[in-house]
Amino acid sequence: MKHFQSETGKGEGEARLPWQDSVQSVTQALAATAVARDQRGGTAKAERDAIRASGLLGLSVPTALGGLGANWQQTLEVVRSFAQVDSALAHLFAFHHLLLATTQLFGRPAQWQPWIEQTLAQRWFWGNALNPLDKSTHALQQADGSYTFTGRKSFCSGASDSDMLLASALDVHGRLLISVVPTARTGIRVLNDWDNMGQRQTDSGSVVFDQVAVAADELLTDPGPLSTPYACLRPLLAQLILAHIYQGLGEGALAEARQFTLQQGRPWMASGAASAQQDPYILGHYGDFWLALEGARLLLQNAATAFDQAWARGTALTEAERGAVAIAVAAAKVATTRASLDVVHRMFEVTGARATTAALRLDRYWRNLRVHTLHDPVDYKLRELGEWALNDTLPHPSFYS
Amino acid sequence: MKHFQSETGKGEGEARLPWQDSVQSVTQALAATAVARDQRGGTAKAERDAIRASGLLGLSVPTALGGLGANWQQTLEVVRSFAQVDSALAHLFAFHHLLLATTQLFGRPAQWQPWIEQTLAQRWFWGNALNPLDKSTHALQQADGSYTFTGRKSFCSGASDSDMLLASALDVHGRLLISVVPTARTGIRVLNDWDNMGQRQTDSGSVVFDQVAVAADELLTDPGPLSTPYACLRPLLAQLILAHIYQGLGEGALAEARQFTLQQGRPWMASGAASAQQDPYILGHYGDFWLALEGARLLLQNAATAFDQAWARGTALTEAERGAVAIAVAAAKVATTRASLDVVHRMFEVTGARATTAALRLDRYWRNLRVHTLHDPVDYKLRELGEWALNDTLPHPSFYS
Amino acid sequence: MKHFQSETGKGEGEARLPWQDSVQSVTQALAATAVARDQRGGTAKAERDAIRASGLLGLSVPTALGGLGANWQQTLEVVRSFAQVDSALAHLFAFHHLLLATTQLFGRPAQWQPWIEQTLAQRWFWGNALNPLDKSTHALQQADGSYTFTGRKSFCSGASDSDMLLASALDVHGRLLISVVPTARTGIRVLNDWDNMGQRQTDSGSVVFDQVAVAADELLTDPGPLSTPYACLRPLLAQLILAHIYQGLGEGALAEARQFTLQQGRPWMASGAASAQQDPYILGHYGDFWLALEGARLLLQNAATAFDQAWARGTALTEAERGAVAIAVAAAKVATTRASLDVVHRMFEVTGARATTAALRLDRYWRNLRVHTLHDPVDYKLRELGEWALNDTLPHPSFYS
Amino acid sequence: MKHFQSETGKGEGEARLPWQDSVQSVTQALAATAVARDQRGGTAKAERDAIRASGLLGLSVPTALGGLGANWQQTLEVVRSFAQVDSALAHLFAFHHLLLATTQLFGRPAQWQPWIEQTLAQRWFWGNALNPLDKSTHALQQADGSYTFTGRKSFCSGASDSDMLLASALDVHGRLLISVVPTARTGIRVLNDWDNMGQRQTDSGSVVFDQVAVAADELLTDPGPLSTPYACLRPLLAQLILAHIYQGLGEGALAEARQFTLQQGRPWMASGAASAQQDPYILGHYGDFWLALEGARLLLQNAATAFDQAWARGTALTEAERGAVAIAVAAAKVATTRASLDVVHRMFEVTGARATTAALRLDRYWRNLRVHTLHDPVDYKLRELGEWALNDTLPHPSFYS
Repeated sequence: MKHFQSETGKGEGEARLPWQDSVQSVTQALAATAVARDQRGGTAKAERDAIRASGLLGLSVPTALGGLGANWQQTLEVVRSFAQVDSALAHLFAFHHLLLATTQLFGRPAQWQPWIEQTLAQRWFWGNALNPLDKSTHALQQADGSYTFTGRKSFCSGASDSDMLLASALDVHGRLLISVVPTARTGIRVLNDWDNMGQRQTDSGSVVFDQVAVAADELLTDPGPLSTPYACLRPLLAQLILAHIYQGLGEGALAEARQFTLQQGRPWMASGAASAQQDPYILGHYGDFWLALEGARLLLQNAATAFDQAWARGTALTEAERGAVAIAVAAAKVATTRASLDVVHRMFEVTGARATTAALRLDRYWRNLRVHTLHDPVDYKLRELGEWALNDTLPHPSFYS
Repeated sequence: MKHFQSETGKGEGEARLPWQDSVQSVTQALAATAVARDQRGGTAKAERDAIRASGLLGLSVPTALGGLGANWQQTLEVVRSFAQVDSALAHLFAFHHLLLATTQLFGRPAQWQPWIEQTLAQRWFWGNALNPLDKSTHALQQADGSYTFTGRKSFCSGASDSDMLLASALDVHGRLLISVVPTARTGIRVLNDWDNMGQRQTDSGSVVFDQVAVAADELLTDPGPLSTPYACLRPLLAQLILAHIYQGLGEGALAEARQFTLQQGRPWMASGAASAQQDPYILGHYGDFWLALEGARLLLQNAATAFDQAWARGTALTEAERGAVAIAVAAAKVATTRASLDVVHRMFEVTGARATTAALRLDRYWRNLRVHTLHDPVDYKLRELGEWALNDTLPHPSFYS
Repeated sequence: MKHFQSETGKGEGEARLPWQDSVQSVTQALAATAVARDQRGGTAKAERDAIRASGLLGLSVPTALGGLGANWQQTLEVVRSFAQVDSALAHLFAFHHLLLATTQLFGRPAQWQPWIEQTLAQRWFWGNALNPLDKSTHALQQADGSYTFTGRKSFCSGASDSDMLLASALDVHGRLLISVVPTARTGIRVLNDWDNMGQRQTDSGSVVFDQVAVAADELLTDPGPLSTPYACLRPLLAQLILAHIYQGLGEGALAEARQFTLQQGRPWMASGAASAQQDPYILGHYGDFWLALEGARLLLQNAATAFDQAWARGTALTEAERGAVAIAVAAAKVATTRASLDVVHRMFEVTGARATTAALRLDRYWRNLRVHTLHDPVDYKLRELGEWALNDTLPHPSFYS
Repeated sequence: MKHFQSETGKGEGEARLPWQDSVQSVTQALAATAVARDQRGGTAKAERDAIRASGLLGLSVPTALGGLGANWQQTLEVVRSFAQVDSALAHLFAFHHLLLATTQLFGRPAQWQPWIEQTLAQRWFWGNALNPLDKSTHALQQADGSYTFTGRKSFCSGASDSDMLLASALDVHGRLLISVVPTARTGIRVLNDWDNMGQRQTDSGSVVFDQVAVAADELLTDPGPLSTPYACLRPLLAQLILAHIYQGLGEGALAEARQFTLQQGRPWMASGAASAQQDPYILGHYGDFWLALEGARLLLQNAATAFDQAWARGTALTEAERGAVAIAVAAAKVATTRASLDVVHRMFEVTGARATTAALRLDRYWRNLRVHTLHDPVDYKLRELGEWALNDTLPHPSFYS
C-alpha cells in the first residue's frame, strides 16, 4: 500500500539508502512464500539463508566495524518493512540485531568487537535463549572461574538454525548471568518444538542446556545486565522492535484488505452504493484503520528518534534521559498494539465473507499479532504511562520496561 | 462454565426437558474431538451420524408429527449449547431445522408434512443450496410444468452428507424458485470444496446442478418465498440462529479462557497480585466479557420469545407484528456479534501467551466467529436499528432482514 | 419517545395500573419546568409538594398499610419515568422510598409501622443524612440509653424540605448508628449549600447536627444495618435506583435528540442524504444508542424481578440468594451507566451544533448523568462482575455493593 | 501540567521566542477569570483588550510588515496554550489570524497590505461574518460596481467588539462574495445574541446587514475564495485552528483533573490502594488520556509543519500538495476530537464526585469541547480519511475540507 511504503523510502528526492535493494529483494522473497510457510510452520531455512546472503545481518553494525551503519530508526524501518509481509522472519531478523546490541550494552568492547566482526565475516545469525521469566536454567561456577549452564529455556526465538546464542542462567546467588556461546557447543540442544497459533516460524521453542561450558569471558558481566542507564536501553530496544513489528503487521493487513476491497469487494444490496469502495461504513472503517496506524507511526518515529539519541549518548546517558525514552517507547508500544489489533480483527468487515477462504490465510495477520502482542501485558504498559502522566514517575527498568 | 450452562438447564427445580440427555451426550461427543476436527476440516461424518442417531433432528418437529416438540427458543438453546463447543456442527444442526421450517413457511402442508415425516423416519439431515446472493443457477420450465435446474451455488452449508437439499434457482423472469430435492438426485454434484479459515466443518462449499429435474410439487410456491408476513419469519429464524451460534461461541471461549486463567494463569510481576485471578485488570476484562454476554443473552431470550409468539400466530401474523420480531432479532444479532467478537479477540489478554500453543487451538473461537459474523454486514443490521429508533421504520423483509 | 414509554405502560392490553394517572401528571409537571429549574438550582418546593399531593410517596407502601402497594419493579418504573424528564426529582422520590425500605430492613416492625403510617397520613417526604463515607458525625450515649448526634454530614440528598431524616453517626466504638428523626428536631440544621454542575435540585448539601437528641427507639439496631442477608438488600435497592435513574436519563436524552433530528436536523452537504434522518452515520449512531439502552433495559428488568423475589423471601433470604441479586443489580448498574453516558455524550453528533443553544439546556442530561454516575466508581462495580465471572465470588456486602 | 507545557516552550536549550512573555501573561490573565467568565458569558471586553495590548494580534504577521513574524505552527501553539485555559478567547484570537490569512489567500496584496498595517497600527481585532452555510445574506450590485449587503448571518464568532469584519453574501448569480468592512460601518448591527451551553464567550451570535455599502476594492475577488490550491489553504487553516483548540482543551482538562486527583483524590475502599494516585484503574485511565493526547499532539505537529511548508509554497502550490496537507489536517482534526472528548467526558472518573461542585465548573471543558467539535461532523472528516486510505482520493476542497 503506497501510503505506508512511501514512508519507508521517504520519497521526496531523498538519497536512496544503500541497503534498499537488498531490503526490497528480501521483502519480495518473504512475501512470495509467506502464506505457505505460515501453514507449514517450522524453520524457514531458505529465507534465513536469504537474509544471511543479503548482508542485512550487518545492517545495524557501524561501518567502522564493516557493517552497513544504519542507525536504529533505519534498522527498525527494515524490520517494519519485513513485518508487513512476514512478521515471523521480521522478528528473527530484529532479534538478531537486538542480540548484537545486547553484547554492546552489557559487555566490554574487547568481548563484542570480535563477535561482531565474526558475525559479518561468517554471516552468523544470532538466536535468543535469554527469557528472564523462565528461571529453570542454572549456572554452576567451576574452579577456574568458568561456568556450566544446565537447564531448559522456553520461548527461545531464533535458536533453531542459529550460529550464536545469547543464553542466560541463574547462579547460586540467584544472579542472572548472560553469556554468548556458539549454538553448536557441546551440551546445547535446540528442540524445534515450537507449534503455535501464530508467529509460526519464529522457532520460539525450547533449548536444553546439559552442562554447557561457558568461559568467563563469554559472560556479559562488565557492566552487566541492566547495570547502567545505558545498559537499560536493552529492554527499550526490545520493546521498540515489538512495536515496529506490530505496526508492520497492521500495515500489511490493511494493504491486503485494501486490495481485496478494490478488486473483489461487492456492495451490500441495502447500501445503495455502486461499489464496495463507496460504501459509507466501509469508508469509515478504512478511515479508522488508517488514522490509528498513522498516529501510531508518528509515535514510533518519535520513539525511534529518541532511542537513537540516547544510544548516541552512550554511558553518559542519565536515568532521566533513559526514562524519557522509556515513555516514548511505551507510548509507541501501546498505540501500535491497539491500532494494529483493530485492523487485523476488523479487516474482514471491509472485505466480506469471501476473504475468509483458507487459500488467502488472511487470518495469519490476526494470529501473528495476537500472539506477539502477548509478549508482556499491555495493561501494565498502559499503567506505566499512567504513572508518568499522573505521578511523574518514570518506568522502573526491567527486562520488560 | 457454570454461569452459562445453568441458563441452558435452568436449574432451580425446573422440570428437565426430555431431550436433555441426548443434548448432553452429543455435546460431549462434539467437544471431545472439536480441536482435532477444526484442524482437519472436511465433513464430520461421525458427528453428523451421532446427531442423526440422537433423534435431535426431530427436535423442532411438533409432537403431533412425531417430533420432540421443542419450541424455537428451546431448539435454539440446544444450538447455543452445541456452539459452545463446536460452532460448525451447531450451524449444520440449526440449519437443518431452518430448512424444515422453510418448507412450512414457504410451502403447502401437503408438501411439507410428508417430507417431515420422512425426515423423522429416515433420519434425514437437510442441507442448504439456497444462497440468494448467488444468481448463477437457472431454472428452465419444461412442457409438463416441471423444471430443470442448472448452474452452481456457493456457500451451500451442510450439502455434503445431506439427504435432502433446499435448492434455489432463478427462472427466466428472474423469479426465485425454491425447491426441495433429494441430494442423491441425478445431476446434483456436491463439490466438497470448502476450505476456510473458520467454521471449517460446515461443508459450505459449492453444489453443481446439471439439468436437475425438479417436479412442480417440489417447488415451494404456495405461498412462496417471503410472500406473507408469516413467510417472512424465515430470514428472522436464520438470523436468530446466527445470533445463538455467536453467543455460544462467546460463551465457549469465555469458559475455556476461564479454565486457563484459573489453572495455568501466572500473575504479572508488576501487578503485585498473588495470582492471575486477582489481577485487577484481568478481573476488569472478565467483568467486561461477562457483562456483554449477559446483556446479549437477555436480548436473545427476548427475541426468541417474540419469535415463538409470532410463529404461533401463523398466517394471521401482521406486518407490524413481524416487524417487531425483526427488531428484537436484529438487536440480539448485533449484541451477540459484538459481545462474542470482543471475547474471542481479547480472551488471550486474560490467559497470557502460553495459551497460544497450537495444541489448544484456542484461536478457533476467533476464526469461527470472525467468519460466521460476516454472513451479512453488521453495519447494516445496526442501521436497521437506527431506522427503527429514529424513524419508526421497520426492516424491509429480505433474505437478510 | 414511544419506544420507551411503551415499556412503562406495557401496552398489550395489560391492565392499567391505578397510579398511572398520577405518574403521568407529575411527569408532565416536572417536564414543564425542568429546564428552568436546572438553571435555577435550589429546592424544587412546588414540585416536591406536587409529589406529596399525588399520593405517590406511598407508592411502595403495601396496601395493608394504606399504601398503593406497588412492588419494587413497579416503583422503579415510576422512578425511571420521572428520570426521563427530571433526574433530580426522580432521585429524591426514589430515595424517599429507599429510606422507607431502610427502616423495614434495619429496624423492628414496631418501629417502622408507625413511621410509615404517619408518612401516609402526613404526606411526609423523607430525606437522607446517612452517607457512610463521611465519618464526621458522632453519637454520644446518654445515661438513659439515648444518644446525642453531633457533627456534619455531606451529600444529604433531599434533606431540604424533608419531614423525616435517616441520619447516621459513629458511636465511641466506631459502630455505625442509624436513626430516624424529624427534620425539625432541635439541633438539626439543613444548610442548603448544594451547588453542583448536575443534579442541581437534589439538595445534596450538608446537614449539621448540634447535640441532637436521638431516643433509643429511634435507632435502627434490630436487626441493624447490613446485619443479615435480608438487611443487605438495602444497598442493592440503592444501586438499583441509581441504575433506573441512569436509564431514564439516557432515554430522555435520546427522545429529545430524536425530536431535534426529526424536526430541525439538516443533512450535511457531503452526505448526499436528502435529510438528516437518512444520513447513514446518524442512523448508525441511533442504532448504537437504542441497542445499548435496550440491552440495559432488559438487564434492569432482570435485576428488578430478582430484587422483588428476594424482598419477598424476607428474613429467609440466604447469602447466596442475596449474592445472585447483587450480581444482577451490578450488571444493570454498569450497563445503564455505559449506555446512557454514551447517549448523553454523543447525542449532539446526531443533532448538530444548533442543539447546543442555552435555551434548550440539552447539556443537562450529560451534567446530571455525569454527576450521578460518580456515586461509586464503575471500575469497582465491574471488578465485582469479574470476581463473579472468573472466581465465582459474590460481592461482599457493603453500603455500595 | 508540565508534560504539555514543556512542548510549548520546547525546553532543550532552544532559544526563547520573543513573544513568550506576552503569551504567558495573557494566558495567566485568561486563566484567572475563566471560571467566572464561563458563568457570565457575553463579551470578554477586558480580556480582548488585554490581547490587543499584548501585541499578539500581530503574531502571524510577517516582520516585514511590522508583525511578530511567527509561522503558523508557532501561532497555533499560542492558540493551543490559550485554549488550555480559555477555549473561547483562544478561538477569537485564532480566528483573528485566520481572517488576516483569508485576505492574503483570497485577495490582492494591494488590498491586504494596508489592512494588515492598520491592524498593527490600530490594534484591530477582526471578527467573522462569513458562515458559508447560512445563505440568507444577499449582495446587490450598484451602478458603480459597488455592492450593498443585506440579510442576517448566524454563528459570527468575534463580531462583537470587533474592529473589522470579514463578511460574505451571495450575489444574484449565487456566487459567494467575501468582503472586508469596518464593523462600525452604517447598516451593520451586531446582535450580541449568543447564549450557548459552551464556548460562551465567543460571541458567535448574529450580525444583521441592512443595505451595507461595500466598495469594489473591499471584495476579495482576486483570486477569490477557494480559487486556487493556495487559496484552498484557507479551510485547512480553519480546521487546523479547531484541532489546536480541541487539543488545548483536552490538555487543560487533564492538567486540572491531575491536580484534583493529586491534591483531593481519595482511594476507594475496595481498591486496597493507599491513595487515589496508586489506584490501578485510575492509573489506567490517566495512561489512556495521556497516550491519546500524545498521539494527537504528534499528528498536530505533523499537520502544522505540512501547512507551513504549503503556505511557503505560495501560489506555486499544486492540488496534490494541498491535498496532502488536507489529509494531515483531517487526521489531526479527528484525532484531537476523539482524544480530547474522551478526556473531558471521563476526567471525572479519576477525580470522583467531589470534583463536580459548581465552584470548579470543571464541566466547562466538556461543554466547550462538545460545542466546538460540532463545527462540522467528524463522521465526514473520517470518511475523507477513508477515501484517501482506500481510494487514494484527496478531499474535495470546500469551506470544511
